[in-house]
Amino acid sequence: MSLIVQKFGGSSVANAERVKNVARIVSDTYKAGNDVVVVVSAQGDTTDELIEKAAELNPNAPRRELDQLLAAGEQISISLLAMAIEKLGYPVISLLGWQAGFNTNSVYGSARIKNIRTNRMKAELAKHNIVVVAGFQGINRYDDLTTLGRGGSDTSAVAIAAALHADKCQIYTDVEGVYTADPRKVDGAKKLKEITYDEMLELATLGAQVLNNRSVEMAKKYSVELEVLSSLNPIPGTLVKEVAKMEKMLIRGVTSDKDVALVSILGVQDNPGVAFRVFDKLSAKNINVDIILQSFGREGTKDIVFSVSKDNGPLAVELLSELPALEGAKIVCNTDVAKVSIVGAGMESHPGTATKMFEALFERGINIQMISTSEIKISVIIDSVDADRAVSAVHAAFMPND
Amino acid sequence: MSLIVQKFGGSSVANAERVKNVARIVSDTYKAGNDVVVVVSAQGDTTDELIEKAAELNPNAPRRELDQLLAAGEQISISLLAMAIEKLGYPVISLLGWQAGFNTNSVYGSARIKNIRTNRMKAELAKHNIVVVAGFQGINRYDDLTTLGRGGSDTSAVAIAAALHADKCQIYTDVEGVYTADPRKVDGAKKLKEITYDEMLELATLGAQVLNNRSVEMAKKYSVELEVLSSLNPIPGTLVKEVAKMEKMLIRGVTSDKDVALVSILGVQDNPGVAFRVFDKLSAKNINVDIILQSFGREGTKDIVFSVSKDNGPLAVELLSELPALEGAKIVCNTDVAKVSIVGAGMESHPGTATKMFEALFERGINIQMISTSEIKISVIIDSVDADRAVSAVHAAFMPND
Repeated sequence: MSLIVQKFGGSSVANAERVKNVARIVSDTYKAGNDVVVVVSAQGDTTDELIEKAAELNPNAPRRELDQLLAAGEQISISLLAMAIEKLGYPVISLLGWQAGFNTNSVYGSARIKNIRTNRMKAELAKHNIVVVAGFQGINRYDDLTTLGRGGSDTSAVAIAAALHADKCQIYTDVEGVYTADPRKVDGAKKLKEITYDEMLELATLGAQVLNNRSVEMAKKYSVELEVLSSLNPIPGTLVKEVAKMEKMLIRGVTSDKDVALVSILGVQDNPGVAFRVFDKLSAKNINVDIILQSFGREGTKDIVFSVSKDNGPLAVELLSELPALEGAKIVCNTDVAKVSIVGAGMESHPGTATKMFEALFERGINIQMISTSEIKISVIIDSVDADRAVSAVHAAFMPND
Repeated sequence: MSLIVQKFGGSSVANAERVKNVARIVSDTYKAGNDVVVVVSAQGDTTDELIEKAAELNPNAPRRELDQLLAAGEQISISLLAMAIEKLGYPVISLLGWQAGFNTNSVYGSARIKNIRTNRMKAELAKHNIVVVAGFQGINRYDDLTTLGRGGSDTSAVAIAAALHADKCQIYTDVEGVYTADPRKVDGAKKLKEITYDEMLELATLGAQVLNNRSVEMAKKYSVELEVLSSLNPIPGTLVKEVAKMEKMLIRGVTSDKDVALVSILGVQDNPGVAFRVFDKLSAKNINVDIILQSFGREGTKDIVFSVSKDNGPLAVELLSELPALEGAKIVCNTDVAKVSIVGAGMESHPGTATKMFEALFERGINIQMISTSEIKISVIIDSVDADRAVSAVHAAFMPND
């Protein structure tokens, strides 16, 4: 007998039909002889609707009250799901975050789980109940409700799996797993059978649709085996684990990210500490810099080019224009760029990987503006207009259709 | 400085505008130098909508899960009201039933309050916070949420007023107070300045619109002074207290109740124990009998006539038809009747009260089928078609327009 944690997002329980569908999946797992803990998010757009109601009354509502408000969303979905499971004839109980023992710190809106007192969940499992737990929420030391922030239900599920030493944590979504590229855009994109935690983290832009990064980090830390699979199509999904079989693939996936702006500082006087001042200024305003390129310019000056999220581009230019150290330099921002990346633990032992990627782009006449590499990732910055073509070209190079 | 408990029903917080209005009333009370605890119900039709969602999934949903579901309604309204009060610039905190210390028994759906642990509310008041408490809900010894049943928010408010020894408990509704008759139907119906607990209980059919009976009983038990007043019109309402000034009125109010059926058992053999068997049979099926009349019929038989609620009329006839002791008797049910009552503590010392009431009806040619009297009430059963005329006639007799 195994203990399985199953997590269903808001779209999986958006209406009565979908709630019944989830009740069937859960009941089937239970019927097969497993102990089951189910974590659910609020139904469909409930959270957004509640936020709207709050904004109407107080655009700067106290975060404690917002959390008190939002926690009602999962309260509704867990009790409804429990009713649907009971209707199918199985013993079930719903537990709010605090009833399930979720103790968090007091950062309302993005609280961190401090510990989970598992006695209630264990007692209910011992009574052979299916346990339905409200994701996304907990309680702090003052007995006030807290929420874990966006994607918090994934984190709740992984945390329960870790605390109860579950055999598996299944994350049900509206896609069938993790793909080598966005299947809506790239012909021949393949669903991965397995992927490592680190690769999953690097595949953030693909993964954002299916798995919250914080939950992957936690799964890695506590060695919780994750499975990403579809609540609508009952086929095996993608396993996320410490060591994954390579399936004869060099890379796990190709991603593109258009939320990129390239800021160029041209003709900087080559004095010591200039780069420090630039990035210190940006980090003071919480602007996260991704890729940095420094090169020699003309006449003893140098150029500094870096990428930030699209939103932060104009702000970065504004901040840097005030820097005395950059007097005389030209600062421009290009938001028509995209970042295309390949991810895969296998690439570090294959020196030809980068070359193969660049070749695929060169053959399509796609110009590379910047390059960044890590042990399991290679990213290039290109014109955003080329992004989709680039992903297809790179994907085809590494994963020829079989 | 006084401590005032204010209760607002679902219609008073039905939308953003109304929530803002309640926030103003509460803030004004606080600004005037009072400590304020506010009890709110779920917004508008929220409770009914949630019940509908549940019924769609499981018409026989477990009561525990229904309570878990319904409690979300007040969770939403208290946090929204707290946000609206904060927007006006006043310190405020919302508390769920269990956070406010409401411990109940485990009768889900109609739980009874066992005690209120007041430490959290007291601590928040000591911090000069306006405290907004979710009505209608509590927690049992298993840490599971419970609800108090319909009208439960009134009970929550009175219980808090009793536990905190509040100076007053104000029940805000959409009417301006308790009237001597239904002001929509009776010309010259007057709002009462004061009324006793007992009179308020007898005025149930008038009071049902403004005050839950259980809450009046509790207010009487703990001597909590109640005030019934309008959340839309800021004028003094009606005080409900142990001893009320009589305002030179003999009676407090005239009510009519059309939810009545008259069951007649005609030609019963006059054997001992027949009446016992009749009412034992009915009480076994939880049929509440109001007025009973027994009279001698023809040829050594007797007639038994009694009133029940309209719903229970046909059921009573069916049950009694099976009784061997009633063999040969004729059992009929008349649902075209109404009960008209006058209520007032003053009437016991005025022997002419009943006469005056009967005279008023006689003058309008209204036939009285049954009469029932208590120390502070006289009720008559008449044809339902005469009910409104009867109320006006009796009201005019006792409260001539000034």
